[in-house]
Amino acid sequence: MSAPAIPKSNGRAERMTYCIGMLVREGLVMMADTRTNAGVDNISSYRKLRVLGDGSRRLILVCSAGNLSTTQNALQRMQRGIANDETMELDSWSSVGSIYEAALAAGRALRLARDGIESLNQGSPISFDATLLVGGAIGGEPHRLFLVYPEGNVIECGPDTPYLQIGEAKYGKPILDRALTFDTGLMDAVKIGLISFDSTMRANLAVGLPIDLIVSKKGASVVDIERRIGTDDPYFGKLSAAWGEAMLKAVQAMPGPPY
Amino acid sequence: MSAPAIPKSNGRAERMTYCIGMLVREGLVMMADTRTNAGVDNISSYRKLRVLGDGSRRLILVCSAGNLSTTQNALQRMQRGIANDETMELDSWSSVGSIYEAALAAGRALRLARDGIESLNQGSPISFDATLLVGGAIGGEPHRLFLVYPEGNVIECGPDTPYLQIGEAKYGKPILDRALTFDTGLMDAVKIGLISFDSTMRANLAVGLPIDLIVSKKGASVVDIERRIGTDDPYFGKLSAAWGEAMLKAVQAMPGPPY
Repeated sequence: MSAPAIPKSNGRAERMTYCIGMLVREGLVMMADTRTNAGVDNISSYRKLRVLGDGSRRLILVCSAGNLSTTQNALQRMQRGIANDETMELDSWSSVGSIYEAALAAGRALRLARDGIESLNQGSPISFDATLLVGGAIGGEPHRLFLVYPEGNVIECGPDTPYLQIGEAKYGKPILDRALTFDTGLMDAVKIGLISFDSTMRANLAVGLPIDLIVSKKGASVVDIERRIGTDDPYFGKLSAAWGEAMLKAVQAMPGPPY
Repeated sequence: MSAPAIPKSNGRAERMTYCIGMLVREGLVMMADTRTNAGVDNISSYRKLRVLGDGSRRLILVCSAGNLSTTQNALQRMQRGIANDETMELDSWSSVGSIYEAALAAGRALRLARDGIESLNQGSPISFDATLLVGGAIGGEPHRLFLVYPEGNVIECGPDTPYLQIGEAKYGKPILDRALTFDTGLMDAVKIGLISFDSTMRANLAVGLPIDLIVSKKGASVVDIERRIGTDDPYFGKLSAAWGEAMLKAVQAMPGPPY
């Protein structure tokens, strides 16, 4: 009767990032928090949502979660170009012909970066894994969105579940599952994403403001909205308070158990 | 710049249980799902919420998450009695003088059980950890509630955060944090607990109906409500649907982003 069990870390492991990518009919939304910590007494802000590409025909948005050293190493490799064994060319942010190719190349960079750093740290209990979201549009293709695993393989976001998350994903998942569909409007997606962040930040101090937000409307390869949402953002404060009240009212309005 | 990183399991590890204990002014509520799985093709139902004690002056409620073999071994040890090095006596469910002593003894049993099974499985990647919630009231003491870690140490539930969770806790935590206080009524606590279960079961197939529910009112050491909530429970079905609708309406009612 030995069933698979809860792993030893038992949820007490540190998860210090939350990023969402949402690909709806009207376009692409990407959001990431900015908190980085090496223990609770060593907290800084780092940008985890980056805009790459040339700003017109080439939009590549990258969110990262996990080891910061691996992430930065992988992004440097992508900047310089990383070998593609099939085409015998170097793939970089500025050379890839599609978001899919960008995600695959970033996956190779991520794996090389991790393996290189791991080899310097043999036997370390620290994980050098990092995970990416890679979204955008290149050369007129429709927006696409991928999750890139630490091992380099990728999965694509599709209309049945029009979002991908990396990092501390569980607290903020129920609201996405209930409220977000492929037909949700672009600004409603932003609203739902911010509610998902609010739930996550209340539960995990290692995910914190400011939140970086980028919105790109369907049919273009440009950033339409780019915003850093900090503690002084009146909308986010209002939304967080209103959502808390709405939850309480909704609980009160539910019928009571007849047991 | 090597920050602590997301662990290798990266959330893909199996978590196959969800239990909540809620200790509010009016009494104690304990809930547990019943699904056990050893892989998606080997699923059974097991009771994870047990009523121990004699049913009058002695109420001990135990929820378990984690390795089933370790759990059952630990419960057998508690049934027979487990050595207490400080009193030189055997502690069992029927001998302990308080819920605190019950939790401490269960912690010793849990650790011995795990270590015994681990020694038979050296080098196995499976975790033999199990975690318990131990709540109730013995001999007229007020209700108390403890979480017992696999290593045997315990923490007590207090009025600032009037609940404890074990197993797949994250999906269902935001609603508890927002809606449950020490002054929440007993049946409202049951309602909030069921909403928390609903969010968890939607996100993780390894947590499933039926849910076992036990309610014990303040000032008594007896079970006031004992109920198994299955797929045929009309209240839970209604609550789940109404909660989904209420979430959608609440999202729609939130102001839109001005960005």
